Order: sequence, then C-alpha cells, then structure tokens
Amino acid sequence: MAASIFPSYPPSISSKQSSYLLKSFIDWSLFNGLSVRPLQAENQNGALAVHAPVTLFPSPFPRACFEEAKAVQIWFNELYARIAADEEWLLKIVDELIEVDDFMARLYKVHLDVKKEGFVQDLSLGIFRSDYLIHVDPLSPTSPPIIHQVEFNTISVSFGGLATRVSELHRHLLRMGAYPSATANLLKQKNIPLDPSAKEIANALAAAHKAYGLGGSGRNTAILFIIQDDERNIFDQRLIEYNLLENHDIQCYRITIQQVPDLITLDPVTYALIYHPPHDDGVHMEISTAYFRSCYGPEDFHSETDWVSRTTIERSKAIKCPSVITQLAGAKKVQQVLAMEGTVERFLPDTSISTRVQNTFAAIYPLDTSSAGLAARDLALNNPEKYVLKPQREGGGNNIYRSKIPDFLKSIPESHWSSYILMELIEPPSLGNSIVRNGIITTGEVICELGIFGAVLWRNGKGLESGKGIKEIVVNEETGWLLRTKGRDSEEGGVAAGFGSVDGILLVD
Amino acid sequence: MAASIFPSYPPSISSKQSSYLLKSFIDWSLFNGLSVRPLQAENQNGALAVHAPVTLFPSPFPRACFEEAKAVQIWFNELYARIAADEEWLLKIVDELIEVDDFMARLYKVHLDVKKEGFVQDLSLGIFRSDYLIHVDPLSPTSPPIIHQVEFNTISVSFGGLATRVSELHRHLLRMGAYPSATANLLKQKNIPLDPSAKEIANALAAAHKAYGLGGSGRNTAILFIIQDDERNIFDQRLIEYNLLENHDIQCYRITIQQVPDLITLDPVTYALIYHPPHDDGVHMEISTAYFRSCYGPEDFHSETDWVSRTTIERSKAIKCPSVITQLAGAKKVQQVLAMEGTVERFLPDTSISTRVQNTFAAIYPLDTSSAGLAARDLALNNPEKYVLKPQREGGGNNIYRSKIPDFLKSIPESHWSSYILMELIEPPSLGNSIVRNGIITTGEVICELGIFGAVLWRNGKGLESGKGIKEIVVNEETGWLLRTKGRDSEEGGVAAGFGSVDGILLVD
Repeated sequence: MAASIFPSYPPSISSKQSSYLLKSFIDWSLFNGLSVRPLQAENQNGALAVHAPVTLFPSPFPRACFEEAKAVQIWFNELYARIAADEEWLLKIVDELIEVDDFMARLYKVHLDVKKEGFVQDLSLGIFRSDYLIHVDPLSPTSPPIIHQVEFNTISVSFGGLATRVSELHRHLLRMGAYPSATANLLKQKNIPLDPSAKEIANALAAAHKAYGLGGSGRNTAILFIIQDDERNIFDQRLIEYNLLENHDIQCYRITIQQVPDLITLDPVTYALIYHPPHDDGVHMEISTAYFRSCYGPEDFHSETDWVSRTTIERSKAIKCPSVITQLAGAKKVQQVLAMEGTVERFLPDTSISTRVQNTFAAIYPLDTSSAGLAARDLALNNPEKYVLKPQREGGGNNIYRSKIPDFLKSIPESHWSSYILMELIEPPSLGNSIVRNGIITTGEVICELGIFGAVLWRNGKGLESGKGIKEIVVNEETGWLLRTKGRDSEEGGVAAGFGSVDGILLVD
Repeated sequence: MAASIFPSYPPSISSKQSSYLLKSFIDWSLFNGLSVRPLQAENQNGALAVHAPVTLFPSPFPRACFEEAKAVQIWFNELYARIAADEEWLLKIVDELIEVDDFMARLYKVHLDVKKEGFVQDLSLGIFRSDYLIHVDPLSPTSPPIIHQVEFNTISVSFGGLATRVSELHRHLLRMGAYPSATANLLKQKNIPLDPSAKEIANALAAAHKAYGLGGSGRNTAILFIIQDDERNIFDQRLIEYNLLENHDIQCYRITIQQVPDLITLDPVTYALIYHPPHDDGVHMEISTAYFRSCYGPEDFHSETDWVSRTTIERSKAIKCPSVITQLAGAKKVQQVLAMEGTVERFLPDTSISTRVQNTFAAIYPLDTSSAGLAARDLALNNPEKYVLKPQREGGGNNIYRSKIPDFLKSIPESHWSSYILMELIEPPSLGNSIVRNGIITTGEVICELGIFGAVLWRNGKGLESGKGIKEIVVNEETGWLLRTKGRDSEEGGVAAGFGSVDGILLVD
C-alpha cells in the first residue's frame, strides 16, 4: 500500500463541471500548441494536431521536494560536465559497457576516431534532465517525503516546450473559472508555478550560439536541430526554435541524421559545419550548435552512413549538445557507480554539496561479477520484490519489475547480465488525478515523475584528450521542470509513446 | 480581362522550396492557433485542430487603398452608430424590408416589444467590419486603383482573431528564411503590417465592460459570447476571449441562444442580465456585454423560445454588441440608400468627410417599384453582365452574378424582387497566389477582399425611442483588418465555409 500524504485528489466534480472543464482544456491546448501530431495514418497531409495528453488538474507535489530538486540541479550539471571532461575515469566504465552494448561501442568509436585527429571545439553544451520520484519510506510513512533520482539524461531531453505550456494551461483554467469554486481552497494561482523551461532551454542554446562567435568567410551562423523523421512531438521542439528566433534572432534548421550527406559539408580548413538549405540555393550557413533531438538510441542509425554523419558532426567546429562523450556520461552504469560511496566527492569536493547530491540517489547495484554485483544477482533472482531491472542504455522502455526479474534474467545469457543494473524501487505516495487523452478523461491512481532541466556550457581544458578536465564553466543554470504522470498500473513512462501525460505542479506544504 | 497592376505573383518556387515552406507554414499555424475545428465527423472527441485555410504568401495590396480604407473606418463607425440612433430614418427603410423579409420582421418585432417598456441601457457597442474590393476601371486601367465597398457588417464580424495570426505567420515565415532569398526584393518585413485586430477587438469589448460599471447586489461582471453550437471557427473567438482574460482580467462565458432559458435570468428590478454557470453552482455573474457571434440569420433561431431569449437579452441592462436596431442598420438596403446622393451628409455633415465615405461606394440600385428601381429591373433583366444581385439579408451566400440574374428573378415572385438589390460589379485587378487548405497548396488567380474592423461605443440620448440620436461617442476606433482571398473561379466568400482563405497584406506602392 502506498503512503497517503496528499489531500483527496482530484477534486470531485459533476458531469456538467467536467464537460465545461474539458471543453476549455481542449480549446486552450489546441490554440496554444500544447499538441502533438496525430498518428501519420490519421493525419491528412500533416494538416492536423491533437491536444497532448495532459492532466486535468496539476498534481500536488511537496514544496520541499520540488525546491530541493531544483536546488541540486546546478551541481548535477557540474557533476556530469566534469564526468564528461574526465576521460580517464569515464572511459574505464565505458570500456566495460561496450563489451555488452553495441550502441555504446559505436558511440565510443566515434569519440576515439575524432580524438585521433584532435577536437577543434573546446566548448561543450549539455541540456540535461534529472528525473525523480517522491519516495516515502513504507516503514516510516510519517517521515517527510524525499526525492529519489530515477535517471539522469544527457541527450535529447524532451518536453521542455510543452511543460511550459502545461503550467500556463492549469493557471489559465483556474483564472477563467473553469475549476469549480469549491476547489478554490485547494487550487491557488500562487501554488501553480509558471514553468520557464521553453524559454530557458532556448536561452542556453543561444548562449552557446553566441559563445561560438562569428562564422568564417562571412557566413551567417545558425543552430541545427538533428531530429527524427516524422517527429510526433514536433511542437515541443518548435517552441524552442520559435523562442530562439523571436527572443534571440537566431535561425534554426531541422534535419535528420540521414540528410547529413546531402546537406552538410565540413570546411576543409576550419572544420566549420556548413549547412546548405535545400530550399534556398546558394545559401551556406555555418552551424554554431548541433542540438540533438535524436541519435540517442540505435533505432536512429539506419546504416553505416549515419555513423559517418555522426562522426562528421563530432569532428566539426560546431558546439555539440551533447558531444559523444557527454552522451556516454549519461549511461545508467555511470549513475550506478556514482551511487557508490565517495564517487560524487571526486567531482564535487565540497561535501556540503556532494552530500545533497548523494541524498537524491536510491540504492543501485551492478549485476557484474564484482562482489557487490554477485550479491545483487542473488537479490534479483531470489528477492526481487523491491527492485527494478534496467538496461544500461538510454531511451526508455524495457524495464523489468519485481517478480518478473528472475524469469527475465534466466531468459538471456548470463554474460549479458552486466548490461543491466538493479535498482531499489522507489515507493511514491498514493495520488489520484485525471488524464485527458484524445479528448477523453480517465481518472485513477497515478505516479508523478519530476524532471528538472539544467543547462551547462563549459570549456574543456587542452586536456579533453588527456582527461584533465574543465577549463571554465561558462553557463550553469537550472532551466525549469517537467512533471510526467502516468496511471499507476502502467509501468512505462514516455508520454509521446502514449502511456503517460504531461502534468503541472501544485505545490503543497 | 482583369487589369494588371501587381508584380508577377506568387513568387515562383521549386518543389523543395515549396515543401519546406509548407512544413514551416503548417507547424507554425497549428502551434499558434491559426486553426479551425475539423468537420465533426472527422474530429475524434473534439480533440483535433486543422490549420486554417490561409495564403502561402501575403497578397500585394496598394498602400494608398489600404490607408484610405483604414482612414474612413471611424467615419463609417460614426455613420452606422448615427443610423442606429436615428430610428425615424432607419425604420422607414425597415418598414419596407419587413414585408419581404421574415427575419428582418422578427428582429423588428423584438425591437418594438422592448421599446414599448423602454430601454434600460443607453450604451451601445458596435464591432463592425467594412469590406472592400480593389476596383480598376476597365476603361481606364492606368488610373490609380480605388476601393469599393462590398458590404458593411454590423453583427458577428469574424476573423478578427485569425487575421492577427495570419500577419504574424507571414512575418514569421519571412524572418525564419522559409521564403527563398530570391523573393527578398518583393517580400520585406516592413511591408507586412502586423494586424492588431484580435487585441483591438478585445479592447473594445473591455471598454464596454468597463463603461457598464459594477454589478448589482455585489455580483461580479462578465462578458457573454452568444455563439453557435459546434462552432468550427472557434479559435478565432477564443483569441478574443483569451485577450480579455489576460490583458483586462475580464471573465467570458459562451452560450448558444438555445441555452438562454436554462442559464440566464433577468434581475426583476434592475433588469441586470444574470448568467448562472452550469459548471459552478451558486455563482451568479452579471453580464456587462452581450457579444453576438451568432443570431445574424434565421438558421440560428430554432423555435419561438429562441426569439423570446433574444428579446430577454435586448430588454436587459447588458450592453448589446449589437443591439437589434444596430443589426437592422446593417441591412444591405441601408447600404443602397446610403449610396444615393446626399444621404451620407445627413449623418456626417462635414462634406470633406462624407465625400471620402461616399467615394468608397459602388453604384447600388433598389429593385423596388420606384422609378430608380424600375430602371434597375430593366438593367437586371436585359443587361446584367456588369452586375450582381444580392439579398438584403446578412449572412453571405446566394449572390447571383451577371447572366444568371434574369433567370433567377423570373424564378421567384415579382413581389419578392424588392428584397434584392442590384450592385455594379467591382473589377478587381489580376493577381495570383497560393492557398493552403488541409495541407495542400493550390495556386491560381485570386480575388482579395479587404475588411476593416471598427469599434464604436456610444451613448444614446433619451431619444433612442424618439429617434433623437446620440448623446456621446465614448469610443471610436479602427481596429485592424482582414484580407480574405478566394480563387477567382469561386463566387462565394466565407472562409469558414471552405471556399476561401485568410490572407495577409503585402503593401505595394
């Protein structure tokens, strides 16, 4: 039984109230780009949008947990920047991973290939998201709830656009009186924080763009989004692009990794990444920043050519968001190593800081053949009820829960076990809410996952190649948040995949 | 043959250019509420939006014509306000109309019924739109183009919301570089004026709301939109509502005339119009302003009850936008009478003003049994090629053109002829453009109709009943514009009906 720390939720409303609220909800969402593309088959000539799956009410969230998650983000930014810049430390972990993970191995090879000829850009941009669940110790349900980190993402973090809109939606519904007066004691404007993520993520990209400087040979500069074809979560991305154009006067272009050979060249002298817009003959734009909204998993690489293209971008003078090595730093295995005593202090020596970072970790165990790994294998096979089994690799999906763990492990070769980690399950408190999807409201028990966005732009020392760390941190910001909420029955997370919803925050004390 | 006064248009673009432009166009439109609801059958649970039909490029429009149309709008506002306040003059015209037009007769009855007990609100709001075509005299194709008024609308003028978005869309496409560089000599930001219509129309409603003053018995005040059920052009209306909430902190509610008996009461003492939100028991809102986005044609009245409801609103203390008599002032027959020498001066005695107003009129003839009417019947039957036959009543549709006029007249009883007017056809210059509808581009010869929005809030003298005119004009503003563009083959106008598109303006000298 999950602990009860929240008021009864969502507010109970009549069918008339719900019908009014739904109409207001859908119209505002569709009007304000809180939308996704419908499935291609349903989307006549691409002319349609469907409102994004979003909760009808913002979910209650403990204020202290929210503030703590935001407060530690700049230290997580710094931590992962320092990891990416500490090749010696990181590559020891990666060396282990590549034996069992072909994708990691391919990424690593890109890094090594480029390293051989030397990196020409010493700036690196990370747009990160640290994801948390609220944890209430089942043995001590009256002690204050705390946050436990679920995942740290270093590439293609999404929903920074839509999350801003969700906070605006809930504030709008409240302001227009669509929430019945009877909910006024619960729902207050001041407790629904306005999420700055869309603007702040654009600000971070703009900072990198500016730090890049002028293009060579009189070329104008632009930011390149490397995207998936037929992206359904398109408006989330477009909002960042529109912010870049309107607030910073920065041009953006969107291409898939498959389009690179046709549209991209490297300046042979400066290694400037040059984009040739297919829709504008004779225009050559120098790319200041390559912003990856794809290439986080093997599915995005269709052929060897795509790996050559990824290498071309890595070789270039463009600032990468992220670089390959920053992407590698996001491996779940790194999270697991960090969870071990003393590791965080290596990168953040101030123990008042490293302790707070460390306090957000749930217990994580390797499944390798170390003594800790062997002990964890025993737990996984014989006492799996408090645990989840996770692949090292990014991209969501394929988590194995509790009693399903032993059978799953037995179904794969033991040599592959070390590509998984075992994590103590976080026990989120009981909460109800309503999710609106395709115009239909469903209500039930939900689980909310808080993601905090962070942006860090740093300058590597001469020693990126020799693992000597960072020369300068140019930008380090917490850049907003995302609350993702799913039905408690469902054990998968991605909203775009149709399993969950984007939520807003209602701060409770 | 239409005269050629514009550059070759639209710019010729390659298929790569057109595909990039289309993608940018659709995403921006869907993200920014430049959308309509799909047909109900295609709109699963109301969860979908489809981009509005809009031109791919803003249409060239002569700067002098645009400036003149904007300049005369405040005089048109005043003209129609004075007409609505001059019962004696107006009702002579209406008396004729009601013999042949049941809808006008019913409206007139509402006015008379309320007049009997006396009006309790001396403020009246008009949100108008004056529609023009560019006319180039075929006999003198090198003389400067002029504007000719097509229609003056006094109720439910639409597209003030979407028109703003269209100007923003075209400016965005230019700024983001989606229009190829080769078009740069033609398309310049400074020649694409930003349309303030959505904001300005909200400002006008807010001015009425404020002038209404405080609610009685401690009630809060709100604006009521009287709408059609399942409105497809919903986002056009929502933008005005959102502007009212965000810029003026004014609550809005939307109901159909059919919902009035269930949701509206009159305060028996003050005649305050009280709205009881079905979604919020025990809340009573006093309506400051009843804003009609329906009830402009007989189709909106399903039963006698609806006429009682319209009467209830007219009796109330709410400011009507428009009052019944202002709606009657918009009869096409009034336009025709105004087109006759000397009439405009009756209302606007300054001849420097009345001349400019008069200069926007094309020749209009009655089809009644006056000597002018009999002469016009002869033209209509025997020489119809330069003319269009129009019903007196509002709402678009059913215009009869050129050679089809004689057969049409012969098909209806001669006693009904006087419910039509004959108008000299305006000869717009030749122009090409591309229209995007349901994600598909079609290119061809088009006709552009310019609508100028105007808002006027006036205080009637004691003498509304006795036809003694206006006491005070409180607000009088030109409030933006709309360009509607349709294929030259099509002879119908309404964009929502799927025949045309919303366009933006590209000023040319």
